[in-house]
Amino acid sequence: MRGLMQHQALTLDSICDHAARWHGAREVVSFSGGVTVRTDYASIRDRARRLSTALQSLGVDLGDRVATLAWNSAAHLEAWFAITGIGAICHTLNPRLFAEQIAWIINHAGDKVILVDPELFPLMESLLPNCPAVERVIVLGGDDESFQLPPGFSSSGALIASHSPDIVWGNFDENTAAGLCYTSGTTGNPKGVLYSHRSNYLHTLTTIQPDVFGLSSGDVVLPAVPMFHANAWGLTYCCPAVGAKLVLPGSRLDGASLHALIEQEGVTFAAAVPTVWQTLLKHLHLTGGRLSTLRRVVVGGAAAPESIVRAFHDRFGVAVLHAWGMTETSPVGTCFAATPAVAPLPFEKQLRYRLKQGRPPLLVDIKVVDDAKIEQPRDGKTAGRLLAKGPFVAAEYYREGAAATGPNGYFDTGDIATIDDEGFLQIVDRAKDVIKSGGEWISSIEIENLVLSHPAVAIAAVVGIPDAKWDERPLLLVKLKGDQACDADAIRRHLNGKIASWWMPEDIRLVSDIPTGATGKIDKKAIRRSLSE
Amino acid sequence: MRGLMQHQALTLDSICDHAARWHGAREVVSFSGGVTVRTDYASIRDRARRLSTALQSLGVDLGDRVATLAWNSAAHLEAWFAITGIGAICHTLNPRLFAEQIAWIINHAGDKVILVDPELFPLMESLLPNCPAVERVIVLGGDDESFQLPPGFSSSGALIASHSPDIVWGNFDENTAAGLCYTSGTTGNPKGVLYSHRSNYLHTLTTIQPDVFGLSSGDVVLPAVPMFHANAWGLTYCCPAVGAKLVLPGSRLDGASLHALIEQEGVTFAAAVPTVWQTLLKHLHLTGGRLSTLRRVVVGGAAAPESIVRAFHDRFGVAVLHAWGMTETSPVGTCFAATPAVAPLPFEKQLRYRLKQGRPPLLVDIKVVDDAKIEQPRDGKTAGRLLAKGPFVAAEYYREGAAATGPNGYFDTGDIATIDDEGFLQIVDRAKDVIKSGGEWISSIEIENLVLSHPAVAIAAVVGIPDAKWDERPLLLVKLKGDQACDADAIRRHLNGKIASWWMPEDIRLVSDIPTGATGKIDKKAIRRSLSE
Repeated sequence: MRGLMQHQALTLDSICDHAARWHGAREVVSFSGGVTVRTDYASIRDRARRLSTALQSLGVDLGDRVATLAWNSAAHLEAWFAITGIGAICHTLNPRLFAEQIAWIINHAGDKVILVDPELFPLMESLLPNCPAVERVIVLGGDDESFQLPPGFSSSGALIASHSPDIVWGNFDENTAAGLCYTSGTTGNPKGVLYSHRSNYLHTLTTIQPDVFGLSSGDVVLPAVPMFHANAWGLTYCCPAVGAKLVLPGSRLDGASLHALIEQEGVTFAAAVPTVWQTLLKHLHLTGGRLSTLRRVVVGGAAAPESIVRAFHDRFGVAVLHAWGMTETSPVGTCFAATPAVAPLPFEKQLRYRLKQGRPPLLVDIKVVDDAKIEQPRDGKTAGRLLAKGPFVAAEYYREGAAATGPNGYFDTGDIATIDDEGFLQIVDRAKDVIKSGGEWISSIEIENLVLSHPAVAIAAVVGIPDAKWDERPLLLVKLKGDQACDADAIRRHLNGKIASWWMPEDIRLVSDIPTGATGKIDKKAIRRSLSE
Repeated sequence: MRGLMQHQALTLDSICDHAARWHGAREVVSFSGGVTVRTDYASIRDRARRLSTALQSLGVDLGDRVATLAWNSAAHLEAWFAITGIGAICHTLNPRLFAEQIAWIINHAGDKVILVDPELFPLMESLLPNCPAVERVIVLGGDDESFQLPPGFSSSGALIASHSPDIVWGNFDENTAAGLCYTSGTTGNPKGVLYSHRSNYLHTLTTIQPDVFGLSSGDVVLPAVPMFHANAWGLTYCCPAVGAKLVLPGSRLDGASLHALIEQEGVTFAAAVPTVWQTLLKHLHLTGGRLSTLRRVVVGGAAAPESIVRAFHDRFGVAVLHAWGMTETSPVGTCFAATPAVAPLPFEKQLRYRLKQGRPPLLVDIKVVDDAKIEQPRDGKTAGRLLAKGPFVAAEYYREGAAATGPNGYFDTGDIATIDDEGFLQIVDRAKDVIKSGGEWISSIEIENLVLSHPAVAIAAVVGIPDAKWDERPLLLVKLKGDQACDADAIRRHLNGKIASWWMPEDIRLVSDIPTGATGKIDKKAIRRSLSE
């Protein structure tokens, strides 16, 4: 027997509708190409609906892929709602990838139309000859006269001005594909994660709750993580869902720009990877700047170093929400929450938990398993492969055929992790980066974090090198800060006593550069390749 | 094209699973029949699964109605998860109704099995001769030797002890019916609202967010609203969903019992109708008691009088969350949220908003319409019929055939309301209680609330009486507090200047009693009947 409640599909257009109807005057501020643009949720909805009509008139239909190549802006968000409102799939391209990779991804996705930021237009133009299936490129913007539209292209501003907002949004199954996001692909080609309206909606409802991001209409939110990284970690749906003010930083993620934005706009909540926070904290250290409105920051994408968690807490009274996730988990899988056992502890004792990646909310289940897929004890010590399950975890990759989720219903994250008796997850390493030495595991991340706490060190990378006796031994590469001098012995002394003696790197090399990939993460594949040459 | 994310049905068993797995040791405290019972979410799940096996062995199948006649307790919650986990429908009976009404409802629902509190067993026994389709009655409890099982009946404790927890929960469509709750039925027979797993799940995700109840694992929650009132306003699903401690008060809702519970168990969040809060505040006034842990209380079921909102704020530093909803809206439709315009105001200026019923969260839409179903301006003045829409709003009543939701997709709540420019709803009256005088509306509720602010008044009721010239005119009935003296002229002077002159009641009568229905609300139907006799 079925319940007798109203049917309402969980489609993303209803988030835009709700924001426009109940938080219509709430501001959305964009910094695009050096210009400040102020709009609100009511205008975004009206413009997105006009753009939907325009896309439909250009032949965009249910299931078509429409890509965006853009930084964080209101025009980008309008494009999202315009695309997904008519059941097309919003494919967010990462402009930081190599041009050949972007072209490969466009062709693999079969993108029909691409909406592009003016400042990324030269990149787009260079890609087009290699993307024959792309029918049309639309430049985002064009609402003012200063805008120089490249000849032969249309602008979203002109399309919005010339089309009607009278269009039917939604009205399709909630399992319809809504978003396509390719993972950076550390092995093989990039893989596409195909979000559904339902998965993005449930991720939104999950993420706004108090024990995850805890977002409300009073918040002013700065996603300093790009919208092409798993929907700015979901924030660009969470904010309209609750009516929070959105501050979208464009491509300006340097310390001075972020600080100015936070203070000018009254930002209360922000999210970014550790390197962005390091840049901000360094700027504040040099300038003596304060954070007068910021209350909470999410750190994700990589483990939050203790220095960041402490600096935010001690110097600025800002709480760090340490989170874990990946494109395949929409992305929020776990987040710090002050459980009844942790909340009463003094900060120094909470640190142990705050440096872990948090706990899973309702609708996410995680477990750590051994090679036989047996769940391991939650003792905070026993490491194993981290598996994840839930309605916003990937089941398959787009056009890959192969399942992402195993027959047990869990997705293998490729991370090695522990879970403690309070339910806190700690990522030990990527499975491919963990060093297997004499049958035991050495965490490259743990050594790197310790080395990073040395005041002279800018970047540290640990990789495994083949060893006849132990199979693998750790090698440490260190890049020093520009103005610092230090040698391998000093690093060794710094590590001594902080790690098990058999974890001590076999070799420590000071290098002038450490390769990073398009998402800013250390590229260990490149390091291993250069070592084996 | 469908998204490629994992399929996971939104079935309530996964809330119990999550609570047991990630908040397993979090306490659930019950006060049943004068005895304190302490358990936790892991035990509740284990016991609920054993009870599921027992129910299945008794022939309970997908879609069967299994009723509960019980106060708030862990045993009652176990029964819920046991029933819904196997796809049977948990029908919560209201023991405060007249016996004939309860029997009528049992027969209308077609209940097969009934689980009953020991203290309600005599009532159940008296009903059975009139409920021939009921196959079996199970008494909740029986885990200790003090328990006296009536001969010929089984106890849940014995069934739990003798059955296995190895059972498959869930594994059915999320639109499967989960709960059945009859409205008190002010006209005609009671009507059954048939919740689905999906509707209860989405209500849970909506209600826990910061701008609604804002619940987290650190909360200690006291639902002083019965579980048979729309699932204790959803709290008995919200708490396991986030891992909050649950404090279940049994039938003890007097001021002294509630105060003792709140202080002993460290309650941070509680929910009840205004009369319960009035009882608690009176007790605190007489005893000089404090509220040392309580931070937020929900007031719903009827408008929160200013005296309650002020007393909680001024004397105890407790924030009142004024909410509106009904059985047909699962029940939370709106709740107070401090929007950016309201949050910075001093309390005295916030009061204007705090005395309204709040704003709709994502997944709820409301509007106020005139007789032609045209949406009225949100000016805080123009009143009309309140309509509601969303995936946890009723579409049809159980076995009624008639749709609850109109052809426009909105459910007519039967309330007369205004919405202001900040989106705050204010209930003006029930449509059937509003007084139509000279073509204009007079709000019986507004006059009653003003009369209640007179220190001598205990209860006030305003009803319309026929009038040759004006169609209807207001009549005010007043019951004084036991120790107070007052006359109609004093009440009239109290109202003078506070309401429009044409709202002044035609007649004011001091009476010794004012009839109330089974849910504690003033029974205006009975008043009108006695006036016309």
